[in-house]
Amino acid sequence: MPHIDFKNDLPGIRSALAYSPETAAPLGVLAEILLRSDEGLTRAERELIATYVSYLNDCFYCHHSHGEIACIYLDGDREIIDQVRNDFSTADISEKLKGLLRIAGKVQQSGKAVTTDDVVHAKNSGATDKDIHDTVLIAAAFCMFNRYVDGLATTTPKDMSSYPLRAKQVAEKGYGNHIYTEKQPA
Amino acid sequence: MPHIDFKNDLPGIRSALAYSPETAAPLGVLAEILLRSDEGLTRAERELIATYVSYLNDCFYCHHSHGEIACIYLDGDREIIDQVRNDFSTADISEKLKGLLRIAGKVQQSGKAVTTDDVVHAKNSGATDKDIHDTVLIAAAFCMFNRYVDGLATTTPKDMSSYPLRAKQVAEKGYGNHIYTEKQPA
Repeated sequence: MPHIDFKNDLPGIRSALAYSPETAAPLGVLAEILLRSDEGLTRAERELIATYVSYLNDCFYCHHSHGEIACIYLDGDREIIDQVRNDFSTADISEKLKGLLRIAGKVQQSGKAVTTDDVVHAKNSGATDKDIHDTVLIAAAFCMFNRYVDGLATTTPKDMSSYPLRAKQVAEKGYGNHIYTEKQPA
Repeated sequence: MPHIDFKNDLPGIRSALAYSPETAAPLGVLAEILLRSDEGLTRAERELIATYVSYLNDCFYCHHSHGEIACIYLDGDREIIDQVRNDFSTADISEKLKGLLRIAGKVQQSGKAVTTDDVVHAKNSGATDKDIHDTVLIAAAFCMFNRYVDGLATTTPKDMSSYPLRAKQVAEKGYGNHIYTEKQPA
């Protein structure tokens, strides 16, 4: 049961966003830029970083939600998502993304855990300054989103078929206000 | 030395905000609402929660920056800030704020660390649902801001006299774009 009365029965972060539209607005803009920008990192890479950090933070709702969105951008290749969760160092992904996931994993622990060696390694694998900036901010933002979702004990849908349906809506329409106001397809 | 070339020599989060104005915009809006809303929690309470979480995350820049802003709202009473950092349970603050700081400290660890008992305790001390919502989101947001600042190894001003000067600007003008574009008074 949620820790506060959201005055709605939406699942996950949507209940908190609908409860507090004034903070939902900048959170939606931030998610839209960080996860759907086509400059530098691909949308699949951005969602994989979000999924990985949410997995490390043990946020069931976020890691399954963003895993399903990543899956859409990866043309349904669910195996890559499982590989990233289990051990990204052996996953079928670029060396650049491996370098960035290493940084994201450090950010999940603490900003101070990121070392010069982590950054040099990512740069040597092809990451630009902007890629590193975006990775650090995506990882940091999911340390916020995950805590927002679990710190208020929002409801986690147990029906796993709801996640891909929701992911399709987000992949098509993005992270605008409809994310909490629009009814999910049955 | 910062992990990336910010193309500016601003200190702390300001270097990252100036490097990435498109993400700086929603981050500024979020900070403005969370830290300067006059609905429910006071500005002093909001800044004390931000200071406490930044202290727990060992983010020197954030915890001193927000500590100085809290100090302004507390009419210069620096002792309360030291008390909150050292042991808020014995600080000269309301039972409600103690209950909320207990929740904020849990959020810093993990969203899942917040228990029903923590929430009931805060409510019994006078906290409303909105106070609890805002506390969880302030604490979660500072788990992001702190990681953004330290994960990119931004520059930390060593001259402690710069923090109160900067705090005065923020207390007067808020968290808009001027936060990284405007020159700090000498």
